[in-house]
Amino acid sequence: MTSTKITTTKVIAKKTKPATDQLEFGRHFTDHMFVMDYHTDKGWYDPRIVPYQAITLDPAAMVYHYGQTVFEGLKAYVTETNDVHLFRPEQNVKRLNRSNERMCIPEIDEELALRALKELVKLEKEWIPNAPGTSLYIRPFVIATEPYLGVAPSKQYKFVIILSPVGAYYKEGINPVKIAVENKYIRAIKGGTGEAKTAGNYAGSLIAQEKVSDAGYAQVLWLDGLEKKYIEEVGSMNVFFKINGEVITPALNGSILPGVTRNSVIQLLKHWNIPVKEEKIALEDIKIAYKNGSLEEAFGAGTAAVISPIGEFACEDETIVINNHQTGDLAKRLYDTLTGIQYGKIKDPFDWIVKLT
Amino acid sequence: MTSTKITTTKVIAKKTKPATDQLEFGRHFTDHMFVMDYHTDKGWYDPRIVPYQAITLDPAAMVYHYGQTVFEGLKAYVTETNDVHLFRPEQNVKRLNRSNERMCIPEIDEELALRALKELVKLEKEWIPNAPGTSLYIRPFVIATEPYLGVAPSKQYKFVIILSPVGAYYKEGINPVKIAVENKYIRAIKGGTGEAKTAGNYAGSLIAQEKVSDAGYAQVLWLDGLEKKYIEEVGSMNVFFKINGEVITPALNGSILPGVTRNSVIQLLKHWNIPVKEEKIALEDIKIAYKNGSLEEAFGAGTAAVISPIGEFACEDETIVINNHQTGDLAKRLYDTLTGIQYGKIKDPFDWIVKLT
Ligand SMILES: Cc1ncc(COP(=O)(O)O)c(C=O)c1O
Ligand SMILES: Cc1ncc(COP(=O)(O)O)c(C=O)c1O
Repeated sequence: MTSTKITTTKVIAKKTKPATDQLEFGRHFTDHMFVMDYHTDKGWYDPRIVPYQAITLDPAAMVYHYGQTVFEGLKAYVTETNDVHLFRPEQNVKRLNRSNERMCIPEIDEELALRALKELVKLEKEWIPNAPGTSLYIRPFVIATEPYLGVAPSKQYKFVIILSPVGAYYKEGINPVKIAVENKYIRAIKGGTGEAKTAGNYAGSLIAQEKVSDAGYAQVLWLDGLEKKYIEEVGSMNVFFKINGEVITPALNGSILPGVTRNSVIQLLKHWNIPVKEEKIALEDIKIAYKNGSLEEAFGAGTAAVISPIGEFACEDETIVINNHQTGDLAKRLYDTLTGIQYGKIKDPFDWIVKLT
Repeated sequence: MTSTKITTTKVIAKKTKPATDQLEFGRHFTDHMFVMDYHTDKGWYDPRIVPYQAITLDPAAMVYHYGQTVFEGLKAYVTETNDVHLFRPEQNVKRLNRSNERMCIPEIDEELALRALKELVKLEKEWIPNAPGTSLYIRPFVIATEPYLGVAPSKQYKFVIILSPVGAYYKEGINPVKIAVENKYIRAIKGGTGEAKTAGNYAGSLIAQEKVSDAGYAQVLWLDGLEKKYIEEVGSMNVFFKINGEVITPALNGSILPGVTRNSVIQLLKHWNIPVKEEKIALEDIKIAYKNGSLEEAFGAGTAAVISPIGEFACEDETIVINNHQTGDLAKRLYDTLTGIQYGKIKDPFDWIVKLT
């Protein structure tokens, strides 16, 4: 597999690129996409870069019925010296295969996946916006395509990579968000699919997200499915708290998505000699820390926002206000360091950056 | 909406129908399908019967990424007098809308959905096989089609109905199956999506199903996600036990799919004055009943098999053998009565049958 060649068919006419100030998240797509097919008789075959185009499937294709699918999300950044940076892409490819395993989808050769990703981004280099905070979002995904209504793993799949130029997450500077603690709906539970990046986790979360955004909150804080006592994650970010000078984040317990940003934050904190622990965290303990004045900061960590300071948690019975709705120093330092590394403005002591050549 | 006309475009050349002895489940599809679109600006629009054809969607269509989808499953039967029977189709349409609500998909007019289903089946009447035990499987489903990578309810959907002629579930007479109790993986939990008929529930279950079928079991018995102590359901069937002359089935607790067959079994038992209870059932209590000799029967109930007697449960530490691996009298009576009503061989005291005219 390692030497499999990726063929390329280029578009005849390129699309007009959206103006930088019109960029949103996930609304515009580039001229080309990567596609590779799978059949149990052949394995993964025909890796190819082709013009961005619709996917045509039988209405009985299993993805429409039983949701056997996984996806990933990462970004490419253009630096001031016009280099293209990917941030830890091998981590996304590894997680893709861990998700595949849980969802009974055949493993994808990681070298090939990484190469596909790099070749596609390179071809679309002029699509990477260069205004501050902008980037090219990369969305690899796998869908089950066999036309069959039996509940069983599909015998056919498509692995696709699409690219979307995205605007800055913080248009007016990094700003704390309000988060609502979710008490009714559950995102995931150990033994379920929470650890995998798969469609069903997101479909099931929409109802909670809708409820809170109607009430003015940015995202929900998910509690554990068993006791609804322990903190899991925030919308599509992992969550961190700084209490009494120490940083804690929920331990990976089988229902939390293991974020690449989460892992990077932990490594950075260790590098800075700031104490950091991965533990089971009761919401109650956060309330106690709030009351005794030791809750210093809270923030989310994920590819989209990088670091998202949290200014307020709305619980059923009380509201926790953090750092007077101001961005904390640690959140700011992490944001500046991570984005600095991503955009090549500061040194990368961890070899996180993969530069496209 | 009630008076919305469904337009019909017929195929030019019909497909060759598969021979009855080659019918499987969900492998062959008829000549036509029903399609209706949704856009937030227009509501549901353009209900139409068209030639069976592929669905073409942007690779960013939300169904591929966030799995916002629901489906249903029911059957049409042809009687000896050449009538076409649907079994409680209004129940499926109601459940479709309950699933829609959980998945943030806009409600579908139930009268229109029912009419679509009937018109399509009527047009495809010659596809309904008439050998004993065969039927036409009806698969309505909704998929999110907006090309957008934000995690939010889609602004566009497609509602589709496809039809598949299916062979007899029991080719050599009704026969008890072996079921393995699942201890590691979880299907659903209250607050999640278990009550809805949505893709993610099935995607997440494949790994457990694969594990047990490799070991020779037909399906898994799911335990509750909280304590892994209480019985939920079997693969894609609800489950019943007969203990000491009384029938019990797990109460609908927020994580079990409310089966139409389950409801019909309960009504029949009441009609026959056989005691029936909907309760929380501990696996331990089934083991105790087995040991003291009061466990008389166990069976699954669902559209595909109608009634599926269970001959054996494999638990971690022991094997429960039921009625000496023979089909119980009650399972047989329920099977004969339900299929008798479906195929119009016996009277329908409940007005369950909708006859197509
Ligand atoms: C549910 C969930 N949690 C956490 C994250 C953060 O992961 P990452 O840092 O790899 O983007 C994501 C993805 O973006 C997510 O979807
Ligand atoms: C998970 C699950 N449980 C139970 C059932 C039985 O439901 P019904 O009797 O409506 O077919 C089904 C559907 O077929 C199912 O998918």
